[in-house]
Amino acid sequence: MRHSLEAVAGHVNARVVGDRAVQVMGIASLASAKPGDLVFVEDEVHLPKALQSHAAAVIAGNFAEGAPASKPLLISDQPRLAFARAATLFASPQVVSVGVHATAIVHPSVRMGRDIIVEERAVIREGVNIGDGSRIGAGCVMGENVSIGCNCQIYPQVTIYKNTRLGNRVIVHAGAVLGSDGFGYVRDRNTGHYSKFPQIGTLEIEDDVEIGANATIDRGALDTTRIRRGTKIDNLVHVAHNVQIGEDVVIAAQTGLSGSAVVEDGVVIGGQVGIADHVRIESGTILGAQSGIPSKKVIRGKGVVFWGTPARPIREYLKELALLAKMAKG
Amino acid sequence: MRHSLEAVAGHVNARVVGDRAVQVMGIASLASAKPGDLVFVEDEVHLPKALQSHAAAVIAGNFAEGAPASKPLLISDQPRLAFARAATLFASPQVVSVGVHATAIVHPSVRMGRDIIVEERAVIREGVNIGDGSRIGAGCVMGENVSIGCNCQIYPQVTIYKNTRLGNRVIVHAGAVLGSDGFGYVRDRNTGHYSKFPQIGTLEIEDDVEIGANATIDRGALDTTRIRRGTKIDNLVHVAHNVQIGEDVVIAAQTGLSGSAVVEDGVVIGGQVGIADHVRIESGTILGAQSGIPSKKVIRGKGVVFWGTPARPIREYLKELALLAKMAKG
Amino acid sequence: MRHSLEAVAGHVNARVVGDRAVQVMGIASLASAKPGDLVFVEDEVHLPKALQSHAAAVIAGNFAEGAPASKPLLISDQPRLAFARAATLFASPQVVSVGVHATAIVHPSVRMGRDIIVEERAVIREGVNIGDGSRIGAGCVMGENVSIGCNCQIYPQVTIYKNTRLGNRVIVHAGAVLGSDGFGYVRDRNTGHYSKFPQIGTLEIEDDVEIGANATIDRGALDTTRIRRGTKIDNLVHVAHNVQIGEDVVIAAQTGLSGSAVVEDGVVIGGQVGIADHVRIESGTILGAQSGIPSKKVIRGKGVVFWGTPARPIREYLKELALLAKMAKG
Repeated sequence: MRHSLEAVAGHVNARVVGDRAVQVMGIASLASAKPGDLVFVEDEVHLPKALQSHAAAVIAGNFAEGAPASKPLLISDQPRLAFARAATLFASPQVVSVGVHATAIVHPSVRMGRDIIVEERAVIREGVNIGDGSRIGAGCVMGENVSIGCNCQIYPQVTIYKNTRLGNRVIVHAGAVLGSDGFGYVRDRNTGHYSKFPQIGTLEIEDDVEIGANATIDRGALDTTRIRRGTKIDNLVHVAHNVQIGEDVVIAAQTGLSGSAVVEDGVVIGGQVGIADHVRIESGTILGAQSGIPSKKVIRGKGVVFWGTPARPIREYLKELALLAKMAKG
Repeated sequence: MRHSLEAVAGHVNARVVGDRAVQVMGIASLASAKPGDLVFVEDEVHLPKALQSHAAAVIAGNFAEGAPASKPLLISDQPRLAFARAATLFASPQVVSVGVHATAIVHPSVRMGRDIIVEERAVIREGVNIGDGSRIGAGCVMGENVSIGCNCQIYPQVTIYKNTRLGNRVIVHAGAVLGSDGFGYVRDRNTGHYSKFPQIGTLEIEDDVEIGANATIDRGALDTTRIRRGTKIDNLVHVAHNVQIGEDVVIAAQTGLSGSAVVEDGVVIGGQVGIADHVRIESGTILGAQSGIPSKKVIRGKGVVFWGTPARPIREYLKELALLAKMAKG
Repeated sequence: MRHSLEAVAGHVNARVVGDRAVQVMGIASLASAKPGDLVFVEDEVHLPKALQSHAAAVIAGNFAEGAPASKPLLISDQPRLAFARAATLFASPQVVSVGVHATAIVHPSVRMGRDIIVEERAVIREGVNIGDGSRIGAGCVMGENVSIGCNCQIYPQVTIYKNTRLGNRVIVHAGAVLGSDGFGYVRDRNTGHYSKFPQIGTLEIEDDVEIGANATIDRGALDTTRIRRGTKIDNLVHVAHNVQIGEDVVIAAQTGLSGSAVVEDGVVIGGQVGIADHVRIESGTILGAQSGIPSKKVIRGKGVVFWGTPARPIREYLKELALLAKMAKG
C-alpha cells in the first residue's frame, strides 16, 4: 500500500509543506524509520531528529511551519492524532478469508451479518447475534444470546457469558472474560458460611470500547453493568458487578473497580488504582496510579489529579510527603 | 417457574405477613422489579420504596413486622440471606443436555459419575476423575490425574494442571488457572543466573469454594497449596505456592498471596491487598483494600480492620493520616 | 528413576560425606520426605530436623561438614541451588508421545524441528517456526509468523499474537497473552474522543525466560518490547508496549510496567509494584512489594531496597513511618 503525501494530508486533515507527490508506504518511529515511512514529532526539540531520519515525510505541529525543512512536512494542529489517523491507511489487510472456519461450532439459531470471520474452534451458542464485518477469534466461547455489533474484533480465547451485549467496533483482546458472575455472598450469622447472592444481571458494552488482554468484567447482580461509548480498558483490569462507566473513560492496567462504582465521562484512571464499592468519580477527574478510593466516596475535580490512598488532590498529597520526608531527615 | 409465597417462606425459613397464596415468579432489585417478582430490603428506610415497586412481595427484617404493608411480606432475621436462598428456587434450568460433547477429547481412563456435562472441545487427560453432576466448560484443559468432586461448575477455558484436586460444589470461572508452577528460583552466586526451584507439589481445593475469572492458584513447590471449605476468591486473585487458606475466607479481586502465607478461618481480605511470603493472618481479621503485609508478619485481631502498607489497625492509620494532613495544611 | 548419591554429587558439584552408594529416588521437603528422598537445609538450625526426617540423604552447606551426621550428606557452597539441580535428575519423564495431535490445526507453511509436541486443538498459523524439542499446549493459538525456539514449553491456552519471537528454553504458563496491542490512544482535543495509536511493533523474548499464568505482555507500538535472557516473570504481571527488561530480572506477581519503562539487568521487583511510563530502574536495584515509581523517574541503587509510593530507599521510608506513628501516638 502506498499513498501520495497529498492523499495522506486529505485523510488526516493536514497541510502539506513541500512535495505533495512524495510516496509514503508506512509509518514508523524516528528510530526505526526506513525510506518511504512517515514519522511524527510533537515538539520543536525533536524536529531535527525527524528531518535527519530516513523517513520520507514528517507530520509536525504548527511550530514546524517556518523551519527550514529537508523533507516534506504535514502540518497539523494535533500531529499525534494525525499520525494515528494516517496509520489506518497503511494497516496491512487481513489475509484471512471471510467465513466460518470448518472447526467452529455454531448453533443453527445464530444470526450472522455479512463479511463475518469466525476463526478456528470458536464456540457460538444458541441465540447469539453477530453484526456485519465482525471477527470472532480462535477458541472464543460465546454463551447463549450474546449480541455482538458490527465490525467488532474479538481476539482468541475470549469467553463471553450468556446475555452479554457488545456495540459496534468493540475490540476485545485475548483471554478477556466478559459477563462473569459478580463477587457477592451473604454470610449466615448463625453458621459463618457464605451463600451466593444471585448474579443474574447482564453486561452491556457500547460502541468503540476496547478491552485489554485477560481483563475481567462481571455482569450485574440483579441489574446491568454498563460501559459506555469510547471507553478504553487496559490489560488485567477488573470491573465488578453493577459498575457504571461513562463515555471516553481511560483505565490503565491492573486497576480494579468494585461493585456499583460509578465513573463519569472523560475520567482518566492510572494503573493499579483501586476503586471501592459505591464510589462515584465525577466527570473529568484524573486518578494517579496506585491511588485508592474508599467505599462510598465521591471524587469531584474536573482536571484535578488525585493521588494516594485514600486519594486526595495531588498538591496536598505531595505537600504531606515532602513535610514528612523533611521531618524524618531531621 | 412459579412458587406460592408460602412455599418460598418454607424454603427460606421466613414468616409470611399477608396473603400466603400470592404467586412469585422471580427475583429482582427494587428498581427493576416487575409484577410477580420478589424483592428484599435490609432496613426500614428502603421499605416504602419496596412497597411502591412493582414487586409481588417483599422480604424484610423484623423492623417491617408492624408497619402498614401494601404487599405481602416475608419476615426474616437475615433478609439478604433469605433473598439469596429464595433466588435458588427461580434459577433457570440448564437447557444443555447431560453428556459428553462429541468434540470433547476424553482419555479412556477417565472415570465419570452420573449426570455429567462435558462441553465443546474440553480436553480431559489420563486418570482424571469427575464426580456426579459436575460440568466442565468448553475448551477447558484438565491435566493428568486431576480430581473434580460432585456438582462442580467449571466455566470455559479453565486450565487445571495435573494432580490438582477439587472438592464438591466448587465453582471456577472462565480463564482461571489452577495448579500452575510456583514462582521459585535459586540464584547462582557465581553466575547471577536463576535456576528453577522444583515445583512438584499439588493443589487441593475443598468443598464450596468459588474462584473468579482469570484467577491463578499455584501448586505447592514440594508440598501442597490448600484452600479450605467455603472460601470465596474473586477475579484476578493470585495465590502462590504453599499458601494455606482456611475456611470461609473471602478474598476480593486482584489480591495477591505470596509463597507459604497462611490465612486462617473467617478472614476477610479486600481488593488489591498484598500478602508477602510466610505471613500469617489470624482468624477473623479484616484487611482493608490495598493494604500490604510484609514478609513473615503475623496479623492478629479478630474483627479488627487493618489498613495501609505496612498494615496497622485502621484507627492508628487514620490518626496518622489526619495528623499528617493537619500539619501539611499548616 | 534412582541415582546413587555419588552420581547426584557429580551432577550438582557437591562433596559426599558418608555412604556414596546410597540410592536416592526423589526430592522432598523436610516435612514430607519419605525413605529414598533427598532433602536440603540452608542453615545449621534446620540440620537436626533434616537428619531426623525419613530422607535418605541431606544436601547442606559447609556448616554441616563437621557435625555428627546420622545420614549421608552432600556438602555444597549453595545447598539450595544444588537441591534445585538435583531435582532435574528426578523429574518424571513426559508420557505424551512426540508429534502433532490429530486435532491441532497447523498451517502447511509451519516449519517444525525434531521431537516437537503439539497438543490437542492448538492452532498454529501461517509462517510459524517451532524449534527442536518444543511443546505447544492444548488450545494454544499462535498467530502468523510467530517464532518459537528450541526446548520451549508453552502450557495450554496461551495466545501469542503474530510476529512475536521467543528464544530457547522459554516457559510460558497457561492463559498468558504475548504480543497483544499496547494501550495507546490519542485524544482529539475537539471531540474528546480517543483514536487508537498504531500498535504495530513486535515482542521479543530471549532464552531461558519464564512467564507466569495469565500474564500479559504487549508488543511495541512502533518498535519492539524486549525481555532479555534469564528473566523470570510471575503470574498476572503486566508488561506494556516498548518496555525493555534486562537479563536475570525477577518480577513477582501482579506487578505492572507501563509503556517504555526500562529495567536493567539483575533487578528484583516484588509483587504488585507499579512502574510508570518511561521509568528506568538501574541494574541491581530491589523494589519492595507494592512500591510505585512515578513517570520518568530513574531509580539507581545497586543492592538498595526501595519501598513506598513514590519509592524511596527503604531506610528513609521506615524512618518516616516510625516518626509518623510516634507523633500520632502522641
